Amino acid sequence: MTTSVESAHALDALFRPASVAVVGVSTSPTSPGARTFANLVRHFEGEVFGVNPAEPEIEGRRLAASLTAIGRPPDLVVIATPSESVLDVLTEAGGLGVRAAIVLSAGFAEAGEEGRRRQRLLVETARKYGMALIGPNSMGVISKPSSLFATFTNAVQVANAGGRVAVVGQSGGMAAIIYTICLAHGVGVDHLVALGNESATTLGDVVEWMMRPESGVDAVLGFVESLSGWDQLAKAARMAAESQKVIAFCRAGRSLQGAAAAGSHIGAVAGDEKVLADLAAAGGIVAAATLDDLLDIAKARHVARPMRGRRVGVVTASGGAGSLFADLMVSAGLELPELSPELQKKVFDVIPWFGSATNPVDTTAFIQSRPEEFCEVAEILAESDEVDAVMVFLGTLDPIAPRLVRSLTEIAERNPAVPVVVTWGGGSKRFKEDLWRAGVATFDDPNRAVRALVGLAPARYVAAVPDPAVVSAPSFDLPPTQPAEGESTVTLNEHEVRGLLEAAGLPVPAGALAADADEAVAIAAGIEGETVLKLIAPGLEHKSDIGGVVVGVSGADEVRSQAERLFALGRELGVAVDGVLVEQRVPAGIELVCGARRDRVAGPVAVVGLGGVLTEIIGEMAVRAAPLTHADAMDALGQLFAGRLLDHHRGIGADAAGAVADLLVRLGGLVAANDRLVELECNPVIVSEAGVLICDGLAVVGEDPVTSDGSSRGGSHQ
Amino acid sequence: MTTSVESAHALDALFRPASVAVVGVSTSPTSPGARTFANLVRHFEGEVFGVNPAEPEIEGRRLAASLTAIGRPPDLVVIATPSESVLDVLTEAGGLGVRAAIVLSAGFAEAGEEGRRRQRLLVETARKYGMALIGPNSMGVISKPSSLFATFTNAVQVANAGGRVAVVGQSGGMAAIIYTICLAHGVGVDHLVALGNESATTLGDVVEWMMRPESGVDAVLGFVESLSGWDQLAKAARMAAESQKVIAFCRAGRSLQGAAAAGSHIGAVAGDEKVLADLAAAGGIVAAATLDDLLDIAKARHVARPMRGRRVGVVTASGGAGSLFADLMVSAGLELPELSPELQKKVFDVIPWFGSATNPVDTTAFIQSRPEEFCEVAEILAESDEVDAVMVFLGTLDPIAPRLVRSLTEIAERNPAVPVVVTWGGGSKRFKEDLWRAGVATFDDPNRAVRALVGLAPARYVAAVPDPAVVSAPSFDLPPTQPAEGESTVTLNEHEVRGLLEAAGLPVPAGALAADADEAVAIAAGIEGETVLKLIAPGLEHKSDIGGVVVGVSGADEVRSQAERLFALGRELGVAVDGVLVEQRVPAGIELVCGARRDRVAGPVAVVGLGGVLTEIIGEMAVRAAPLTHADAMDALGQLFAGRLLDHHRGIGADAAGAVADLLVRLGGLVAANDRLVELECNPVIVSEAGVLICDGLAVVGEDPVTSDGSSRGGSHQ
Repeated sequence: MTTSVESAHALDALFRPASVAVVGVSTSPTSPGARTFANLVRHFEGEVFGVNPAEPEIEGRRLAASLTAIGRPPDLVVIATPSESVLDVLTEAGGLGVRAAIVLSAGFAEAGEEGRRRQRLLVETARKYGMALIGPNSMGVISKPSSLFATFTNAVQVANAGGRVAVVGQSGGMAAIIYTICLAHGVGVDHLVALGNESATTLGDVVEWMMRPESGVDAVLGFVESLSGWDQLAKAARMAAESQKVIAFCRAGRSLQGAAAAGSHIGAVAGDEKVLADLAAAGGIVAAATLDDLLDIAKARHVARPMRGRRVGVVTASGGAGSLFADLMVSAGLELPELSPELQKKVFDVIPWFGSATNPVDTTAFIQSRPEEFCEVAEILAESDEVDAVMVFLGTLDPIAPRLVRSLTEIAERNPAVPVVVTWGGGSKRFKEDLWRAGVATFDDPNRAVRALVGLAPARYVAAVPDPAVVSAPSFDLPPTQPAEGESTVTLNEHEVRGLLEAAGLPVPAGALAADADEAVAIAAGIEGETVLKLIAPGLEHKSDIGGVVVGVSGADEVRSQAERLFALGRELGVAVDGVLVEQRVPAGIELVCGARRDRVAGPVAVVGLGGVLTEIIGEMAVRAAPLTHADAMDALGQLFAGRLLDHHRGIGADAAGAVADLLVRLGGLVAANDRLVELECNPVIVSEAGVLICDGLAVVGEDPVTSDGSSRGGSHQ
Repeated sequence: MTTSVESAHALDALFRPASVAVVGVSTSPTSPGARTFANLVRHFEGEVFGVNPAEPEIEGRRLAASLTAIGRPPDLVVIATPSESVLDVLTEAGGLGVRAAIVLSAGFAEAGEEGRRRQRLLVETARKYGMALIGPNSMGVISKPSSLFATFTNAVQVANAGGRVAVVGQSGGMAAIIYTICLAHGVGVDHLVALGNESATTLGDVVEWMMRPESGVDAVLGFVESLSGWDQLAKAARMAAESQKVIAFCRAGRSLQGAAAAGSHIGAVAGDEKVLADLAAAGGIVAAATLDDLLDIAKARHVARPMRGRRVGVVTASGGAGSLFADLMVSAGLELPELSPELQKKVFDVIPWFGSATNPVDTTAFIQSRPEEFCEVAEILAESDEVDAVMVFLGTLDPIAPRLVRSLTEIAERNPAVPVVVTWGGGSKRFKEDLWRAGVATFDDPNRAVRALVGLAPARYVAAVPDPAVVSAPSFDLPPTQPAEGESTVTLNEHEVRGLLEAAGLPVPAGALAADADEAVAIAAGIEGETVLKLIAPGLEHKSDIGGVVVGVSGADEVRSQAERLFALGRELGVAVDGVLVEQRVPAGIELVCGARRDRVAGPVAVVGLGGVLTEIIGEMAVRAAPLTHADAMDALGQLFAGRLLDHHRGIGADAAGAVADLLVRLGGLVAANDRLVELECNPVIVSEAGVLICDGLAVVGEDPVTSDGSSRGGSHQ
């Protein structure tokens, strides 16, 4: 669920304004307003206005008494006034037709109830006028192509040549550090966006704008805590995949996530963290473990062209290095293809007989006397069409380093479509710098080089936009519900869930609700094999523990006597009995949990994992945005033990996985199409020779629990 | 299984010789022999002799015609002659009483059958004379305290102040790179050992010597492919834990491991790679993912004292950084303790009201104006006794950097027992260097700083030496076996395995083998509840598929008719029937696989994992060296889903895990005590209300399959 209302047009005004006004230019030179104004005056090539109702002039520069007093509306307004007056300034800006605002002021959602109220009003105002709104509590925005330094951070001071990289942070401090690290390593950065409280314009809005061809950005590096604006992010990830760009996020807060809505496995196991990690991965967003990963991706992007596929050829003079690269690449999801016999022969003609012409190629230490031939091996791979990048590993080779640098530079020039990346372990710094300056991406450490390659490679899998005609998403009548006092939702009982699933055409065991023992016998007569009888009454949970479930009942007499016993039990317990559910006994099989729910950040999602006791023990779940395609569902299953169990288990139809994927697509479609369906969990789904059957379920119906406090994320994000 | 025969005394001669002779000083100055000789002449402070039978003098230096011709035996001999003559030189050296040799020459196990034969002879000779033998195919050894540069590598050229770090490599090239990287980062290295083909003196021998107090080594950095000399390594790891030293290995070759002895799960799933990874982890050896990890551990060790525990306090001025550190520390197995209310109050008195005094502490950006108070927070933690290290995160703070450097240096000086480690993201290099020079470990990147902390922390768990009185290890009579032509082992049938288990007092279901239907009825009469009948005949596998197993038989009539049917089936199949096994039917429960086997490298090991179909799907196994203690077995279970299943499952005795651990200890003891027992796999072991019962098993009896080709590892390791 996103609160984003901004069009790309409003973001154009943010990143490419012709004129900027700073409201709240205080007389204190170290205040955020004064520092931001000074940065803009010094660097910005367009018009800069300062606003202070009390001071007509600061340091010889005239200030306007208000935005209106400037005479014509600026494209972008930066607001640094006390929190109480920010709303008035934003309203004035909106009324004048200003398209974008950055609020530096703190004292909003990060500062208690009153702050949250103020923030809600800001969001309403931004929506009303269709303005882009960064912040409040933002450190500001840098946009080098416009010479826009609308920020009070010291990071401005660093020389920045600009480059096709953008840095976005939900923590402004960390974003500034990433920006600074990139510049210190010679990687120019075009944009720095500190999202602050991220009240209106979200991470997703900003990243989507960055992925447009006109933005000039190839790589977005993010320090994020939450994937807010997921719809836009998913769209941006698809755009990135189509145009060989990359989005890489270092995500913090994984271990600090609390648990777990009680009573629901898909809530407990697939909490926010899991949802976001899965969605990001399925969308093709690169997961960076640390700041170095982001830097290395930026470095690789700075000099190398993106890879066309995920295949890497490795050339080393050390078998040990080759093994290490193989390990690192496999665990990073890159491919180490076997080389064709023809290609192996070409390589073998160059290296000594005791070397290895398989991938990773081990030339042996002959490099020390014949560096040009060593490099020739790299070129043979680069020209082969069998790999999408070549990783060259060099050791301590200073005496021949100039010859290596020359050869490798030439190879990189002759083969621009296949990046040649060099890992130089222990070589002298100056030779590595020579390579770097010649346009060859060079790293010290094998793992860092491999992580950088991941940033050059296309995504393993990118979820497609589901075709509404293919994705079944029936909108049906949910039962009218009357939430208890203070609650916004109602949890349906087993029989109601069964009705819901039947109405949606989903596979449940044969059976029906009997009002008395006679009816139970009649229903059982229509069911082949043994039956299961269950007492159904509102609020009656843990039925098995009190003897409310009988398994394996057969024959009219036994059905009658068990049904009578269950009705008697209901009277004993004093509950309002709905009836006795008579159902086909489902044979043993693989137990799964399948479900769908509305996530606070990501909106509707579908979830699948191992069922039964293994749900809790193994905690295995895969999450995908809903609605989803059959291919998405198969991709999710493919990542799970559950998928492998379906493949291995005997006695189950060949396309058990396909049938489970169908179910998942339909569950996702149901939740996506029915706003009042908050959660629908099928557990267990039993896959057996009887097919795929939903044997129990839980549904939560009512108001969407997404809070609307005017903040897509709360708290302070400095 | 190790082929190590060297005493520590022989390794003293290797690392601390008073005199060295190089045999094979060729007239070509770039040959390994000549370069090694030149390195020794230039640097070594003891006596250096050169040997060349044909040349009396090279570059003005007199050479001896043979080792014997020197007149008195040197402590160490370096051999660089052609491979054919190495054995003669080694034999001559042994006869003269030389205690240590390094063979640089190639052409041994890495070069075909003849080379393997030559290598075997070298090993026999070294054993005969009790010599330490590094190589063949080694790049050599550097031992800085003795000024010993017995190597032809260029790595000697680099200035090396020495330090309490040793580098050991099964790949000489990679070892040289690690050595060079350490020196380039200001970390002195005392020893570099390139093990080459590692024929006699193993990784374990060398690392054990390094862990002795007299060695002066605090940290061993290894680039390894195989944990050869496991017994010595395990001992070294225990010594490291006792004396706050560290052993860290970057292991290559994980992804290239082939599969899988057929028919045995513990062979297939717990292949070499898994065995070694588990044993290293259980022994407390730090797993480094890449070269940078090794470097960072060395850097931390170079300036900081080791931690007393694994608790870390984090101080940041950014909530985002705190979250990232929490994530990284949790996944690295470090602890982020909650701070006591008293300590939180102390911290809260210093930071602003909107900061956070919980761990990780977020001081907010107030650091920019009050760096000394920020540092005071770090000192409050360092003095608290509630953490074992303090991680301080700094961002781009150049204007106040000198004040930070001063304060942090003072804190580190005042609190030597609690290392203060600084991660400075994006700060200027010179300030970081100032900190480093002042003795404060400083890193650029959060993940690298956390990985370095792991190298300062004590091991999570170190397997103890099992007390023979506690570990039951009965030595019993294995059945006489007659392996088939060309085979060295025999696989026992189910009934034989049952007999073996019964003889060892291990828990099997009640039952016995019946020779005819009458006997089957008699056996069944003595068993409570239903029985299972199984046809037993030599070589009869997949009994279930051909109807050779009947489950749930009860009553004399049914037992008789089923037994008769099984005997008839045996006649039909034309097999030599041993009888029909009549066994108690074990109730459903948690299925495990428990076993023990002899590993090629590690010797006897015990293995435990999930059984049934999940064995293959989830592939979950834990491996421990055998014999093992109950605590080891519980630690292994604690790492598994299987352990959590035992804890969660209802209807099973409270100490199900303890009973499984007992079984594992006894299986490990059996294999450890019986050389002819190659493998004993119990699958499934069913844990149910009936207790822990071994329901099927596989045993391999015969010759220990460890090859004795004179090489603990084969192939080329440059």
